[in-house]
Amino acid sequence: MGVSSESGITHEELRLAARNHAMPLEALRWPITPVGLHYLLVHYDVPLVDPATWRLEVGGTVAQPLLTTLDELREWPSVELTATMECAGNGRALFEPRPLSQPWLTEAVGTAIWRGVPLAALLDEARPGSDAVEVVFSALDRGLEGGIEQRYARSLPLAEARESGAVLAYEMNGAPLPPQHGFPLRLVVPGWYGMTNVKWLTAVTLTTEPFAGYQQAMSYRYRQHEDEPGRPVTRMRPRSLLVPPGLPDFFTRERVVEGSPIALEGRAWSGGAPVARVEVSDDGGASWLEARLTRDLEGPWAWVRFELEWEPPRTGAFVLCSRATDETGATQPLEPEWNVGGYENNAVQRVSVTVR
Amino acid sequence: MGVSSESGITHEELRLAARNHAMPLEALRWPITPVGLHYLLVHYDVPLVDPATWRLEVGGTVAQPLLTTLDELREWPSVELTATMECAGNGRALFEPRPLSQPWLTEAVGTAIWRGVPLAALLDEARPGSDAVEVVFSALDRGLEGGIEQRYARSLPLAEARESGAVLAYEMNGAPLPPQHGFPLRLVVPGWYGMTNVKWLTAVTLTTEPFAGYQQAMSYRYRQHEDEPGRPVTRMRPRSLLVPPGLPDFFTRERVVEGSPIALEGRAWSGGAPVARVEVSDDGGASWLEARLTRDLEGPWAWVRFELEWEPPRTGAFVLCSRATDETGATQPLEPEWNVGGYENNAVQRVSVTVR
Repeated sequence: MGVSSESGITHEELRLAARNHAMPLEALRWPITPVGLHYLLVHYDVPLVDPATWRLEVGGTVAQPLLTTLDELREWPSVELTATMECAGNGRALFEPRPLSQPWLTEAVGTAIWRGVPLAALLDEARPGSDAVEVVFSALDRGLEGGIEQRYARSLPLAEARESGAVLAYEMNGAPLPPQHGFPLRLVVPGWYGMTNVKWLTAVTLTTEPFAGYQQAMSYRYRQHEDEPGRPVTRMRPRSLLVPPGLPDFFTRERVVEGSPIALEGRAWSGGAPVARVEVSDDGGASWLEARLTRDLEGPWAWVRFELEWEPPRTGAFVLCSRATDETGATQPLEPEWNVGGYENNAVQRVSVTVR
Repeated sequence: MGVSSESGITHEELRLAARNHAMPLEALRWPITPVGLHYLLVHYDVPLVDPATWRLEVGGTVAQPLLTTLDELREWPSVELTATMECAGNGRALFEPRPLSQPWLTEAVGTAIWRGVPLAALLDEARPGSDAVEVVFSALDRGLEGGIEQRYARSLPLAEARESGAVLAYEMNGAPLPPQHGFPLRLVVPGWYGMTNVKWLTAVTLTTEPFAGYQQAMSYRYRQHEDEPGRPVTRMRPRSLLVPPGLPDFFTRERVVEGSPIALEGRAWSGGAPVARVEVSDDGGASWLEARLTRDLEGPWAWVRFELEWEPPRTGAFVLCSRATDETGATQPLEPEWNVGGYENNAVQRVSVTVR
């Protein structure tokens, strides 16, 4: 992966930005992100899958291999999971120098209600061998990356696969998965960054060795230098985003607000632990005010709402920020923590507004 | 509107590209674009509309002003309209120098089935005065553009409003409009570029003078120089797009294909007249082969499918193009026809592939 220290976004980055879309920040007003506004990253092409011939194959180091149809899977006991999902590369385009890949700003996130079969139930049925260490999830989307032709595939440690509350989802917000979100079946691992949630799932394979596929061993590693192995990217760091208040300018997206107090609101999440507090700053992070939290969605894996009545001390230009802290004490830094792949940038968002 | 002759996309353009998404080209395989893959341009913010308090106001130069609720509108006789919609700025980022606005490449398009009330029926009910010349459609989304605070609004000549087959749509693909596509009501004028299809509609106003609002008089005009009035942008020029064949590289989106023949397919449309023919070239437009057309959707306003079995004459690099011609003889140029706002770029798409 290369880097660019020039300010101009390259044609390749634009091509990715045109395909892979973020969530417009005003959509933070909706507890469940409307379909089509949830962020989307497709590594290769969205495959056209015929649900009649599609199969899920469960194999590898298991006592009972399985081959199931979509209709059969829908007969299994199902669960509903409300989860916030964020791309591991969210914030990449704000790093300097800028890692060259999908150029996300701050809003590669969304929250959905997923319905499907608990992964743990599927594993119980297949009975992993005592020497199984990982579960590999293989997808139908194909392409080249780092010069290697591949199907998208990622793994989880077996313990994580069993205990994380992961779901093999066939519904999103009460309807069959849209093609771009993994129809007919995808993995959803609550709390983990997006790359874990393998779409267009076709095989679940128990292995006795850690998976060394491209998306596990080469990509999605947190590194300071290209030549170090780094650590794997896993759970979402705490993050919060404000709904930009007032009116936008079409081209610059700069905001103008009027009146006082101004109702500020936003959403916050963390993959490590529940959000404990959110603070808001109107001076770029020099001082902070405590926001009120509302937990308006089911379960521990969805973002929380925060709000604050802001009384601007004057008119003119302000930089608004918000900062989430989770129950482990993990919080958001003021500045991005650079790494080669441009992952896990949970630096506080900055929203420029002019108070009239 | 400024221009950039530098190759780097600016931060402002990236911010727009992150919000406003195109349709991944492989989605051309679906006759009706899955919700969330249909292109989307939001001028300001997606408004959060309460359907219980929302009203449509029909007024101005009419004998019978109307004020209707969503439930009341749903009691009117409804029609279904299958329509392909393309942004007037599609292809803007391929102009040199590049007009600075939403930086679309080639794929700001989509096809949907809209259901709603014929605009002509609403006008019949309101009975426009004999001196009415235009119908102004006003929306709920607010922002600043060209330094002017505004709600989004566009007009149609009264004759066009009556005879174009326009629909006031409250359903998209069998479900209520998603927020980002105009919930609870939008205008759909088949054959016209996207800016005409006003979302979050709140007022329909008959006027005795041509509308001089920003989006009509300043924006969406086809001009060679900033200081000329130009002509209004209206109906979609003919255009065709190929599904890029083979496998993509993640970052460059360059394609690799194997075997022969290679099944090429795509979609073509025109707002002026039905598509009469589509040709495909494997040498960047020097020579052309006739594609087979299939009309697999209802009515005259949806794109047609085209296909061709391509036998590459050798291995190596090719540039594939397609070219649509409609029944008026209008066709696609090989090179973009530059204009200040970056509109109506229907130059042939170029898809680089390597045959192995």
